[in-house]
Amino acid sequence: MTIRLAVDAMGGDIGIDVVIPAANLFIENNDQDVRLTFFGDASKISQKLLLYPKLTPFSDVVHTDDVIANDMKPSSAVRHGRKSSMALAIESVAHDLNHAVISAGNTGAYMALSKIYLKTFTGIDRPAIPARMPSASGQVLVLDVGANVDCTPALLSQFAKMGNVYAQYILGVKNPKVGLLNIGSEEQKGDAILQDAYALIKTLPLNFVGFVEGDDIARGDVDVVVTDGFTGNVVLKTIEGTAKLFSTMLKNSLKKSWRGPISYMIGKPAFDYVRKVADPRLYNGAVFLGLRKIAVKSHGGTDIVGFANALKVSVDMVQKKLPYHIEQTLS
Amino acid sequence: MTIRLAVDAMGGDIGIDVVIPAANLFIENNDQDVRLTFFGDASKISQKLLLYPKLTPFSDVVHTDDVIANDMKPSSAVRHGRKSSMALAIESVAHDLNHAVISAGNTGAYMALSKIYLKTFTGIDRPAIPARMPSASGQVLVLDVGANVDCTPALLSQFAKMGNVYAQYILGVKNPKVGLLNIGSEEQKGDAILQDAYALIKTLPLNFVGFVEGDDIARGDVDVVVTDGFTGNVVLKTIEGTAKLFSTMLKNSLKKSWRGPISYMIGKPAFDYVRKVADPRLYNGAVFLGLRKIAVKSHGGTDIVGFANALKVSVDMVQKKLPYHIEQTLS
Repeated sequence: MTIRLAVDAMGGDIGIDVVIPAANLFIENNDQDVRLTFFGDASKISQKLLLYPKLTPFSDVVHTDDVIANDMKPSSAVRHGRKSSMALAIESVAHDLNHAVISAGNTGAYMALSKIYLKTFTGIDRPAIPARMPSASGQVLVLDVGANVDCTPALLSQFAKMGNVYAQYILGVKNPKVGLLNIGSEEQKGDAILQDAYALIKTLPLNFVGFVEGDDIARGDVDVVVTDGFTGNVVLKTIEGTAKLFSTMLKNSLKKSWRGPISYMIGKPAFDYVRKVADPRLYNGAVFLGLRKIAVKSHGGTDIVGFANALKVSVDMVQKKLPYHIEQTLS
Repeated sequence: MTIRLAVDAMGGDIGIDVVIPAANLFIENNDQDVRLTFFGDASKISQKLLLYPKLTPFSDVVHTDDVIANDMKPSSAVRHGRKSSMALAIESVAHDLNHAVISAGNTGAYMALSKIYLKTFTGIDRPAIPARMPSASGQVLVLDVGANVDCTPALLSQFAKMGNVYAQYILGVKNPKVGLLNIGSEEQKGDAILQDAYALIKTLPLNFVGFVEGDDIARGDVDVVVTDGFTGNVVLKTIEGTAKLFSTMLKNSLKKSWRGPISYMIGKPAFDYVRKVADPRLYNGAVFLGLRKIAVKSHGGTDIVGFANALKVSVDMVQKKLPYHIEQTLS
């Protein structure tokens, strides 16, 4: 089966200048049967494609006149953005012309349009955005990281179900440990929403380990961390910021004497390994969990390496049939 | 002036076995005129003090029969815990027998009892717990990190005022940059509470830089980050967990080949520097901001180095007259 990806070439802070080279990088490292359809300004896309002769044979272009601006409100995107590169890319997946859509554009608009075209599963009130983060045991999935600022207990329990499926089928974890983020691990802590969510998740057929705290995320004792989109987004960005701080501090500190550069040179493989594990670009590409079809969101400010990774993630989601497994669990 | 500290010797997971050696470590490194009064089981405290002849001349002991358990509810501590080591240590500060109280005990009980004995300033609804964290420019203050899970806009604006004073007088920052934690830096983002808090803080006579995000905390562009106690606590612990993960990863990675240990040996000063900056024990000791007198909370699970640091923080707060400066700002 050819895996067909619908790529919004205009989205994000990045646009064609990043999307096309990223697609080329992706194709260079890809051994799957893949076809990419770029949605956007056809003349600009085609011109750019000329620079990448290896990419061209795997590419189609669909011309669109409109672009969703980064500051457009979701409601406005839904009303006025139906002819945009983003909307038409999503629609192509709704019509089964493509298997997955990828955009680095306006998150709110992308989520709103995806919900309309791709629909949520019965039993899912609102889709969630999950994020993979490094942990002592490999990776941990945190959701939601930004789609739903206010969450009901029911919604949090839906996140738990979907996160459990994601960890099993995408991360390959058997019987994933699912935790609910709180500021104390005692059962009586947290507000009413967290208490009720705890009670709901406890009844689910999954390995619920109860409340976990911020320092448990990286510890490796839990595979899925359930939280509301506000807290999850703060956590995601705090981890990114902390990782960057420590790598910068170590670098600067190593520069302070003659010892540093020598130490770095000798230890380079180890430093490179840690830098790679901590590189947020290699975690770029988050699927909207709970939709009937696959829509992957790339960070708006990512670079070629980051967007190429989002394309890789999309292929992975198609191959591992994430929506199918979620539907099976929900029914 | 002799700085007199009231030390709850029984609190936390740690108790006398950590508190007394920590006090000894503190005295060994201290050049201030300080006197410590330990509250708790007098016979056990005195027995332990025998092991530390350098500490004894600076120490008094007040016997108490009761201890506040770690799982006691604040309401119950207020009703039944008035004769505990914690309560009597706080009361000694209320009666001006000591300048500051330090406890590693039950946070909720400590906060509740401190509010009763030490009182909040007019204009402060509830005290906040601030935390100092490493940042690219030195340190950043985040508040609240756990005292107030639900915050009104008014409370958040009080945190902004107090954090501003803390950054000026304790961290020595001129005209501190104060930010409000959100999941987007655009003015229209966030829920109604954050929107209203934004509007309130904007009217204050301080250097408000608007909304900041999780990755801004470590970046060094902001000195004070205002947030509710739930998010702040998650942030604090996420940073601790991330710092630990990366230091462990680097250590393990360096062990993988012969290169690692050599690289480490040569670069040791740099590694040691970063380890020290990231050591959460050196950030231990958080004052309850908004009380008329000084109460410092130590992490319940800290060690000798951590509790000694909390004692140092307490002396610093007394010397720099934090409550006085907060009162000046509020009036």
